[in-house]
Amino acid sequence: MHIAILTFDAFNELDSLIALGILNRIKTPGWQVSIASPTPKVKSMNGLTIERHINLSEACEADAVIVGSGMKTREIVADQQIMQQLKLDPSRQLIAAQCSGTLVLAKLGLLNDIPACTDLTTTPWVKEAGINVLNQALYAKGNIATAGGCIASQYLATWVIAKSQGIEAAKDAIHYVAPVGEKELYVDLMIKNIASYL
Amino acid sequence: MHIAILTFDAFNELDSLIALGILNRIKTPGWQVSIASPTPKVKSMNGLTIERHINLSEACEADAVIVGSGMKTREIVADQQIMQQLKLDPSRQLIAAQCSGTLVLAKLGLLNDIPACTDLTTTPWVKEAGINVLNQALYAKGNIATAGGCIASQYLATWVIAKSQGIEAAKDAIHYVAPVGEKELYVDLMIKNIASYL
Repeated sequence: MHIAILTFDAFNELDSLIALGILNRIKTPGWQVSIASPTPKVKSMNGLTIERHINLSEACEADAVIVGSGMKTREIVADQQIMQQLKLDPSRQLIAAQCSGTLVLAKLGLLNDIPACTDLTTTPWVKEAGINVLNQALYAKGNIATAGGCIASQYLATWVIAKSQGIEAAKDAIHYVAPVGEKELYVDLMIKNIASYL
Repeated sequence: MHIAILTFDAFNELDSLIALGILNRIKTPGWQVSIASPTPKVKSMNGLTIERHINLSEACEADAVIVGSGMKTREIVADQQIMQQLKLDPSRQLIAAQCSGTLVLAKLGLLNDIPACTDLTTTPWVKEAGINVLNQALYAKGNIATAGGCIASQYLATWVIAKSQGIEAAKDAIHYVAPVGEKELYVDLMIKNIASYL
């Protein structure tokens, strides 16, 4: 199982890297999590430079693709060179988007008749793209999930884990990363957010 | 206000980078958040390479220092070349440690007679260093705070914000990053964890 996290210039660290950290709690052979970017290096919205693992074309071959968020998503969805590379297919992939990543899925035509979650800033742009935006952390239909609010990336990552490895694996992952003394609370919150979408 | 996040080889992305993302919610002039590492690049426990902003000696001049966590902390505390560079002083700095970062503070002698929080894996090593480990997400005394469990890094970051900018700024920061539909819940959890240590 290969999961690609699409990460663009001016990306939000919380959105791409909370998912990266939680997904890597799975130690099953063949489980691989990659940062995918258009360029070999990308700089975050707060000036953190990271090196990508794979390019966008390799990401499209992954078994699951999470579209991260950032400050330049409206420029990205207007960039035909990037958008034409994003050949995603929910019939063979889990597809997930975090915050402004939802705008990418909307523009790719993947959210037709599917309501979606996003952050408060991106909400008007996603609505303008004709999508019904929900006031909740995560929504999924079939193989497509969207989440809103940076820390909801923990729910998006555990949705990917639960869909592919089962809910117990998702519980173990969130239990490990949750604050000491609040582990049951965080597991319960995760279940509340994803259990009806598996 | 300059905050340095000490980030070593095999670092845990959640611990260093959740703090980075939340601390950067503050837009006050002069507010600066830097990743500090012994080498120009560091690779995380899950194979993510990032570029540091500053070195360890520059980090020691910061107004606040957060010690991140990772898979090699026991090697780091045995590395005299690194440990001798860490001249931290709670009389002039806020000092915070996340998960195995607590072991670094213990070995620097900064936790004498102060109980501490850490993750479940690091607990025996921190106890072995003579520190009383608490079963909770965060504890602080004066200018020194420790936290346990990766996602508790949100509490450590907001403790730094609240100590320097006030509790309202901390509430705003956590409200922004919290999941949609759960923002009040996350603000309440943050207050519950840090309010008695300000």
